[in-house]
Amino acid sequence: MVSEKRLYTLTLSCPDRTGIVAAVTSFIANLGGWITDASQHGDFSDHHFFMRVQILASSLKMEVDEFRQRFSDMALEFDMDWKITDSAKKKRVVILVSKQDHCLYDLLYRYRSQEFEFEVAGVISNHENLRSFVEWHNIPYHYLPINKENKQQKYTEIVKLFEDYKADVMVLARYMQVLSPEVCARFPKQIINIHHSFLPSFVGAKPYHQAFERGVKMIGATCHYVTDELDGGPIIEQDVNRVDHSCSLEEMIRLGKDIEKNVLSKGLRYHIEDRILVHGNKTIVFD
Amino acid sequence: MVSEKRLYTLTLSCPDRTGIVAAVTSFIANLGGWITDASQHGDFSDHHFFMRVQILASSLKMEVDEFRQRFSDMALEFDMDWKITDSAKKKRVVILVSKQDHCLYDLLYRYRSQEFEFEVAGVISNHENLRSFVEWHNIPYHYLPINKENKQQKYTEIVKLFEDYKADVMVLARYMQVLSPEVCARFPKQIINIHHSFLPSFVGAKPYHQAFERGVKMIGATCHYVTDELDGGPIIEQDVNRVDHSCSLEEMIRLGKDIEKNVLSKGLRYHIEDRILVHGNKTIVFD
Amino acid sequence: MVSEKRLYTLTLSCPDRTGIVAAVTSFIANLGGWITDASQHGDFSDHHFFMRVQILASSLKMEVDEFRQRFSDMALEFDMDWKITDSAKKKRVVILVSKQDHCLYDLLYRYRSQEFEFEVAGVISNHENLRSFVEWHNIPYHYLPINKENKQQKYTEIVKLFEDYKADVMVLARYMQVLSPEVCARFPKQIINIHHSFLPSFVGAKPYHQAFERGVKMIGATCHYVTDELDGGPIIEQDVNRVDHSCSLEEMIRLGKDIEKNVLSKGLRYHIEDRILVHGNKTIVFD
Amino acid sequence: MVSEKRLYTLTLSCPDRTGIVAAVTSFIANLGGWITDASQHGDFSDHHFFMRVQILASSLKMEVDEFRQRFSDMALEFDMDWKITDSAKKKRVVILVSKQDHCLYDLLYRYRSQEFEFEVAGVISNHENLRSFVEWHNIPYHYLPINKENKQQKYTEIVKLFEDYKADVMVLARYMQVLSPEVCARFPKQIINIHHSFLPSFVGAKPYHQAFERGVKMIGATCHYVTDELDGGPIIEQDVNRVDHSCSLEEMIRLGKDIEKNVLSKGLRYHIEDRILVHGNKTIVFD
Repeated sequence: MVSEKRLYTLTLSCPDRTGIVAAVTSFIANLGGWITDASQHGDFSDHHFFMRVQILASSLKMEVDEFRQRFSDMALEFDMDWKITDSAKKKRVVILVSKQDHCLYDLLYRYRSQEFEFEVAGVISNHENLRSFVEWHNIPYHYLPINKENKQQKYTEIVKLFEDYKADVMVLARYMQVLSPEVCARFPKQIINIHHSFLPSFVGAKPYHQAFERGVKMIGATCHYVTDELDGGPIIEQDVNRVDHSCSLEEMIRLGKDIEKNVLSKGLRYHIEDRILVHGNKTIVFD
Repeated sequence: MVSEKRLYTLTLSCPDRTGIVAAVTSFIANLGGWITDASQHGDFSDHHFFMRVQILASSLKMEVDEFRQRFSDMALEFDMDWKITDSAKKKRVVILVSKQDHCLYDLLYRYRSQEFEFEVAGVISNHENLRSFVEWHNIPYHYLPINKENKQQKYTEIVKLFEDYKADVMVLARYMQVLSPEVCARFPKQIINIHHSFLPSFVGAKPYHQAFERGVKMIGATCHYVTDELDGGPIIEQDVNRVDHSCSLEEMIRLGKDIEKNVLSKGLRYHIEDRILVHGNKTIVFD
Repeated sequence: MVSEKRLYTLTLSCPDRTGIVAAVTSFIANLGGWITDASQHGDFSDHHFFMRVQILASSLKMEVDEFRQRFSDMALEFDMDWKITDSAKKKRVVILVSKQDHCLYDLLYRYRSQEFEFEVAGVISNHENLRSFVEWHNIPYHYLPINKENKQQKYTEIVKLFEDYKADVMVLARYMQVLSPEVCARFPKQIINIHHSFLPSFVGAKPYHQAFERGVKMIGATCHYVTDELDGGPIIEQDVNRVDHSCSLEEMIRLGKDIEKNVLSKGLRYHIEDRILVHGNKTIVFD
Repeated sequence: MVSEKRLYTLTLSCPDRTGIVAAVTSFIANLGGWITDASQHGDFSDHHFFMRVQILASSLKMEVDEFRQRFSDMALEFDMDWKITDSAKKKRVVILVSKQDHCLYDLLYRYRSQEFEFEVAGVISNHENLRSFVEWHNIPYHYLPINKENKQQKYTEIVKLFEDYKADVMVLARYMQVLSPEVCARFPKQIINIHHSFLPSFVGAKPYHQAFERGVKMIGATCHYVTDELDGGPIIEQDVNRVDHSCSLEEMIRLGKDIEKNVLSKGLRYHIEDRILVHGNKTIVFD
């Protein structure tokens, strides 16, 4: 649900040691900052620390840029990897989609109803079939058909569109093309995919077929950041649904759609609200 | 899972204002305290603040009693309701049970396997049937049969046993007697009950019969603190399981047992680990 | 998922006795009927029997009308309440909606993508805001604003629209008006409502507010047939989602929407596919 | 829940064709048999049919042996793979266990409380630590320590014990030894294992460690029949539980125990009640 109040969200990670929370929260308190939400996590295995703080913008006695400047000294002292974002500046999303439309339809509903704060800058598809629906929402639709010959060129066009749109995140909403390693490397932690299995089971093509063959009693979906390893990036969110012997492959696919929609929209919301910190190949999600 | 390390757990609540987290964590940091886990929550509706901090005992430069003394000044300033507990001092539990034994059996397993830190000081029952099993675990068993005439007297005996055992918490593990208002009032936030329905549905007797009659598609269980309102105290934990028309009342009862066991043991663990703060008739559970 | 094959669906209930399944399946086998799916249920408490059989239309040596005629003799013998439907004749749905659009949006997606077999004949609303979206789907939109004075007249118009459309089922997709007892009585087992709580908890208005106040740890939604008892009709489907103290009322409402959508669409599909038999105030759902 | 009534359970599978249900149910009806529960399933991919029928023993006009004899003619005609069991003859279970005791403890509770109908004939372990608890339940305990040298000899002893006990099913309740291919082949569909992951993810040793490393957001457990492929046999039942970044490996293991217990006991009950039919490497479970 979109908050009516303007918020700053500070996220940081650094080597763990005594006094980090005290330093960060004292810094904020000294500037009059009202913390509306705070979460932290210490990873015991490699002694790393993670934190997310939401500050009511109106309570801070300065602009976010000045905050940023002042905070950088402390960040240096603690060797922090950090950023601060402003809810007044909505994140921009580019959605890539193929023929399957359930995730797109679901995301556009959440966009239209302002379920959380984001702009859909544009939709890119290798098919024409969803143009009318997307344009009804006043969103530009880009038809980029891909084949073996034009792949590299089309990927370049996708990168250009993404950068021209000044987009923050690319969502693969059942996009049936595998992005090139170059694209993946160019936008680390910025490309979100929905895979229609409970990873790491059933990597790659036709996961419902694989699940059906194996006779599993639950099917699932996984939302993850895209890396150059196929379906191997950091997992953001997963969910499952019960199936049984009476479930045909077609019914699995139908049931799976509802899981995919929910898991992808949750994952995207976590990203948009700066709730995700990536550590190695794992995520910390402050939900 | 029982931690091998000795921990202090500080829980507090107070009117919300700027700087509470900063003050608390700075106080701890200045004493060298290593925070292994921290959670906080601000209730926007009535501007109240809640916090739980776990401190590695060996990192503090003083005994817990000295910490307590020093902290009380700040607590006064912020008008805090607070306490600090020491994991080296295991909480003591008295279990009340009737004929149904699934929750007792489950709790004793978790006790015996040290799944979390607690002592079962004794078991009180209005039946004799579970004596042998309880005594096999080297736990004292008290047979206190209750009828209309001796009710008040038996309640007095229960209170006496509880206080003689210096117990911290009383668990009603499917105890089929309603405690008197006096007992409830004497031990606020210290008596935990498992009710075999998804409260507030099906308050009172025979909830599975009520659920069966209403034709619900899920049954549940609720762990809550006992107050003088029947099944009306603050809810700690709930869970449900799917049922359908083919489920007889007997099968509902069987399925329900597994939910009851899990919900009760979770609720007890939250209590034992000082994860629950009560606010009005609601709980904050830092799980 | 829409089957490409034409199916007849026979549903029946009757007093339980030896030989019902044998009689029904022998009758079908003697006519060459290939049973693609069959389910039965015996209610032990009042000795009533329920059955649903799907027959491949092309395997039967006669039209459905002739089958109907022949079957009626046996039905009489067993004192059956029965019907047979033909998947070639799609059921027609009229959707009633107010300002909240998440359930409508979801149902129209499932309609448009032919997730299961139904026609949306028309949408009726007491607000104008959803006209453009509905009409984009080529579905007629009827604006019937309701106030205290014109209530009865508008109900009459709703009934007329429903009957003019020759609709089979009326779906209250978060329709914020309570239908009159006359309308409820006129279409028994034909009006489906989604209530945004885990019934029987939180009957009536503002169930999320009630849930928030009570401090429950899970929220839910219930799909049920409408009777003249408010939120008291036979329950078709329910589901829940976990919440905790950090969930504001607004977040509960947001989380609840996803449950409502899934529960309502499941309930409607069960109705459309003749999977529901009503017995007293309970449902048998052959899913 | 143990039924007080004696029941015969007929399970069968055969090539699918018109009239199987009619033939089977007519056969039973002609002998006066009262069917208390019936389920069937047709596998469309390879046209195979599966059925399970429960008959009230007292309603049949003959002993089960005579029924068996008469039924065999029809079974031949339909090329059925079939059997009929008698609830008066309790199935006998041998449990194999190592040091971890949560599944054993849980199964013995369900046995002692007669949650469903089975006898625990004996417990075999490669450790001594659980002897006292098992013997408290009046169950024989066999200590068979296994090392590289004596493996084959110990497997032979296990086979001998199983056969001497005239046991029906062997349960690997977190038994940390891999049975030899000979033992697996000797008792097809008679050995049930609980694997502590959501198969096919994390086959083999230390699945929680694997899950922790991969950063999954849910962990699970799988109950399956043992074949000579490690963790590759037909899946009977699965379940999962949500975890997040704050879950240490130790907490995962603790949470996992509750899933393992529930999944294993469900799987065993399905087996005991003849609810499972195996088809290729998949199961049909009539639950």
